[in-house]
Amino acid sequence: MEIKNLCKKAFEVKHDVAKLTTNEKNKILMDAAEQLIEDSEAIIAANKVDMKNAVENNMPQGLQDRLLLTVERIEDMAEGVRQIANLDDPIGNVLSMNKRPNGLLIGKKVVPLGVVGVIYEARPNVTSDVFGLCLKTGNCAILKGGKDAINSNIAIVNCLKKALLKNEAPIDAVSIIEDTSREKTYELMKMNQYIDVLIPRGGKGLIKSVVDNSTIPVIETGTGNCHIYVDESADFDKAIAIIENAKTQRIGVCNAAESLVINKKIASEFLPRLYTVLTNKKVKLYVDEEAMACLGDVTSVYEATEEDWGMEYLDYKISVKVVESIEEAIKHINRYNTGHSEAIITENYSRAQKFLDEIDAACVYVNASTRFTDGNEFGFGAEIGISTQKIHARGPMGLEALTSSKYIIYGNGQIR
Amino acid sequence: MEIKNLCKKAFEVKHDVAKLTTNEKNKILMDAAEQLIEDSEAIIAANKVDMKNAVENNMPQGLQDRLLLTVERIEDMAEGVRQIANLDDPIGNVLSMNKRPNGLLIGKKVVPLGVVGVIYEARPNVTSDVFGLCLKTGNCAILKGGKDAINSNIAIVNCLKKALLKNEAPIDAVSIIEDTSREKTYELMKMNQYIDVLIPRGGKGLIKSVVDNSTIPVIETGTGNCHIYVDESADFDKAIAIIENAKTQRIGVCNAAESLVINKKIASEFLPRLYTVLTNKKVKLYVDEEAMACLGDVTSVYEATEEDWGMEYLDYKISVKVVESIEEAIKHINRYNTGHSEAIITENYSRAQKFLDEIDAACVYVNASTRFTDGNEFGFGAEIGISTQKIHARGPMGLEALTSSKYIIYGNGQIR
Repeated sequence: MEIKNLCKKAFEVKHDVAKLTTNEKNKILMDAAEQLIEDSEAIIAANKVDMKNAVENNMPQGLQDRLLLTVERIEDMAEGVRQIANLDDPIGNVLSMNKRPNGLLIGKKVVPLGVVGVIYEARPNVTSDVFGLCLKTGNCAILKGGKDAINSNIAIVNCLKKALLKNEAPIDAVSIIEDTSREKTYELMKMNQYIDVLIPRGGKGLIKSVVDNSTIPVIETGTGNCHIYVDESADFDKAIAIIENAKTQRIGVCNAAESLVINKKIASEFLPRLYTVLTNKKVKLYVDEEAMACLGDVTSVYEATEEDWGMEYLDYKISVKVVESIEEAIKHINRYNTGHSEAIITENYSRAQKFLDEIDAACVYVNASTRFTDGNEFGFGAEIGISTQKIHARGPMGLEALTSSKYIIYGNGQIR
Repeated sequence: MEIKNLCKKAFEVKHDVAKLTTNEKNKILMDAAEQLIEDSEAIIAANKVDMKNAVENNMPQGLQDRLLLTVERIEDMAEGVRQIANLDDPIGNVLSMNKRPNGLLIGKKVVPLGVVGVIYEARPNVTSDVFGLCLKTGNCAILKGGKDAINSNIAIVNCLKKALLKNEAPIDAVSIIEDTSREKTYELMKMNQYIDVLIPRGGKGLIKSVVDNSTIPVIETGTGNCHIYVDESADFDKAIAIIENAKTQRIGVCNAAESLVINKKIASEFLPRLYTVLTNKKVKLYVDEEAMACLGDVTSVYEATEEDWGMEYLDYKISVKVVESIEEAIKHINRYNTGHSEAIITENYSRAQKFLDEIDAACVYVNASTRFTDGNEFGFGAEIGISTQKIHARGPMGLEALTSSKYIIYGNGQIR
């Protein structure tokens, strides 16, 4: 009942939120940033409760680090909200307007989606980010954060609501679901009467559960089994720098490289050089027979199983497959990738274009690291997630992904 | 098992279909048009079986008419496919390409969705239309037509496959599900492993069932409870012509008007004039108390119940509500509409703009009939359906709605 009420409240105010002008929305965002800093003490106190539970529950150190809030981190959250205020507001723009033979003038106008539901992991900074992105695009946000961050999230949302209240905007423009149990998540997924789109951010299990159960249109933000194909004409220095960067700069992210595909013509020369660089960074290699033959009897190299080709390690591990041709490389990548980010390293024009044409993924690179798949790196200023599905939005999603359109038609009495 | 195999086959050839050039696709479409005419006899023979069953099953006359195929109608189908060949191919265009500060060149390229599933009613002409639209956009089509048209559909798809075969293109670019039982439809809805998008076309019940059960992303093509609001400053002649057209030009379509909202200031003058025109066309009026008072004791006028406000009659019936103001009109329409097409009749500038801004629907009209909500009328050349949801596509969907995008990134060794 509680979830239904909360969704219904958002639904009831969505047209008022949609009507806010850019100036009004920016004022709320700047006030929210200030309020976050003013309320730092209360937010940190709530976060302490979450951190205490995390320690008691033996949460892994990496996750504890993402959960922790400090004065500096709250300042970063506030700065993130301010940056969103500085972005151009897409709402209300008319993308095209065409005159029909009968005189009708038909325009395509950018409008908010309405009510956006976001399910995410235990990272409290996402709470203010999602609020900022949704409000800037005239949407109401229904947030379901990780249960480990619930106290922090409630404190942050209370703070954001103060900024709405101060500006006489609907406080139901943002809500957090306080009961983080699995049943309530299922209940949320059935609220298609009130919610226009649901964005799950998190692991494979969560995303599959949402896809299987949601009656609300879903934007899948997916896992990344990202490949780098080293072509026979690759510049080895570029290839090694890019692979090192894509694998080791940050291992726990979806745009990290998880699998290498190497052309046979250069495998025996390239792989030993790459091996030295990767093993210096403590990377373990899971390789096929051909690659094994090129590397010889060395440490940190293991036989790959079928499972390795489909694996998103999120760890200091990478799989290596040797292929006869670019055709075999493309076939392998299109079979095992997750539609996220794939790269070719080559100096050959035709094979670069072929790879760009034929690889089926959100982002396809020539001679650059897969780590660039990111809203900020793409110049969107902010990101609500990275879509790995094909409808509505694909790749990093900025403000535009949080909008819909409506046709506005100016007539002077036309009938059919 | 059969459905899974059929979906898998489409999945396996989708990259080959995506690679077809515009010239190759157009050649297939022109050959398919010719083949339809060549195979007219076989298609009409299959259609005779469906028609015989339809008569035996007492199918309503209107539906029988939509099911019937004649030589002329097959010629129209062929002409429809030829027209699709003449449309611009959106696939492969790069919509924007921006240089980032680090030198990366990031482009957004239009690509096919992949495998498109379409569930539709017993109208065999839709079979060739959907094939044409999907092939033109490099997609594979999995068709589930109404069971009453199954023999006609199988004959048409066999004919389309001949055109594919003749051009050495994958014949699995189009498939029809021969078993039209409900269980098979449920099975189809779970094929998210192979199908990229599912488009249900049909009644409320079908669409709700797909939304509730599909694990494939769905584009809802919806019912239309379309309103016309007659403002106090309306030109009565325009208003009456538009209402007559929107209600009676074709009653069984989703863009027909189903409900009138009349400003109180003009109700007593306007309604009697409108009444004469509508009742001449045999339209029954379901009216509120205010409207009843304006009309007096006349035939063909009934008291509206709460149910009438939400009703898509698809019949010679219309509901009528009198309101105090445009604000009340907008509130009423946003509450009861189905997000399809809504119109205001007014000569007042500010209220026209307010209506365009605040009505939440795919298409919002000033001084024109809601009947224009149609891909051809909008200049798209063809239409796969009319979306009433907000993600991916909203309103009439042409070729563009059958595409996705991918980012292509040209680098020269960039790392993060």
